[in-house]
Amino acid sequence: MSRDLFEETLDSDAVYDGVLLKVKRDRVRLPDGKESVREYITHPGAVVVIAFLPNGNLLLERQFRYPLGRTFIEMPAGKIDSGEEALACARRELLEETGYEAENWREIATIHPCIGYSNESLIYFLAENLSFSEKNLDEEEFIEHMELPLASALDLLRYGEITDVKTVVGLFWAEKIARGEWK
Amino acid sequence: MSRDLFEETLDSDAVYDGVLLKVKRDRVRLPDGKESVREYITHPGAVVVIAFLPNGNLLLERQFRYPLGRTFIEMPAGKIDSGEEALACARRELLEETGYEAENWREIATIHPCIGYSNESLIYFLAENLSFSEKNLDEEEFIEHMELPLASALDLLRYGEITDVKTVVGLFWAEKIARGEWK
Repeated sequence: MSRDLFEETLDSDAVYDGVLLKVKRDRVRLPDGKESVREYITHPGAVVVIAFLPNGNLLLERQFRYPLGRTFIEMPAGKIDSGEEALACARRELLEETGYEAENWREIATIHPCIGYSNESLIYFLAENLSFSEKNLDEEEFIEHMELPLASALDLLRYGEITDVKTVVGLFWAEKIARGEWK
Repeated sequence: MSRDLFEETLDSDAVYDGVLLKVKRDRVRLPDGKESVREYITHPGAVVVIAFLPNGNLLLERQFRYPLGRTFIEMPAGKIDSGEEALACARRELLEETGYEAENWREIATIHPCIGYSNESLIYFLAENLSFSEKNLDEEEFIEHMELPLASALDLLRYGEITDVKTVVGLFWAEKIARGEWK
C-alpha cells in the first residue's frame, strides 16, 4: 500500500449502538498532517449464495427492504453470526431462507459493498446439487421465493428490475461461471 | 409490489446526525401485524464514472478507505450535492478527482449498494472522449491516478485485487459494453 495515502487513527468512539447498526466516529491524521473525522458502520460481514436448482434455474427471493421502501429481487444472503465460519453461515442462510440444502459448495470471491462508510465484507458461494429440506425463516423475516433461468434474471438486470448490488454482482458471476470464464 | 411483504412506518427518529453519516431508527408494522425496528443510513445518492481515456485505457484511482484500513482501486465516484443533477455530479467528480472532462456521457444504470441498511442509490455513467483539464481535489481528498487496459482491470478483479463493489460492477458493465452486450 502506498504509505502517502495512509490515515492514522488518533482515537475512536462508539457513537451509536443500535439494534442493527453500530456507528463509530474516529479522529484521524490525514496524509498532509491535518486532522479529520471518519464515521463508519462496523459490520460482522455477510455471505451471498449463488444457488442453482437441479432444473438449472437460479434460486432467488423477494424481500421488502425498508430503507428503500420497496421489494427487491435478491440472492439468498445473510449476516455472519459471531464466531461463525462463512461457509457455515452460507449453509444456514440458504436453509433458513429457502429450505434448500446443497451438496456442492464453492467459494467464489469476497467484495466490499460500501467502502466509504462501512467495513462490511460480502463473501460469495456457489451452491449446486440442491435438495429441498425444510424452510425455517427467522421471526421478522418475510421472504417470497422466486426461481428463474439465469438468462431471465440477466434480462431483469438489463431492464433495471434487479438493482440490489449483491445480486447484480452475483448474476454477473453466475454468467461468467456458466460461460466458463471464471475459474 | 406484493402487498403482503409491506412494512408500514409507525414513527421515525433521527438517532444520529454526524459529519458524514445520518442514521434513522423507525418503528414499523410487519406483515404479520407485529412491531419491529428498522435502522438505516439516509444517503443523498452517488455517481460512478466508467471513464475511457483516448488511448483506450480505463481511468481508475487509488484511495485509502478508512473503514477497511487500506487502499482500494476504484472508479471515479462521489456523492450528489443537494439539488444537483446526477450528470452534473458525474462531470464535477470526474473533473475534481482526475482533472479530466469528457465530451460524451451516457447513463448506464442505477443500482443500490446496501439495501439492508442504507437508502443509497448509485447511478452509473459512461464517459468517453476525455481530455485533460485541471485536477482540483477537495480538501481532505487524497487520490492517486491509475490507468489500465480493461483486460488488466478484469484480471485484478479475478485475482481479488479489486473488491470495491461499485468498481466491480462498473468493470462488468465496461466488459459488456466493450463486447456489445449492453444497450
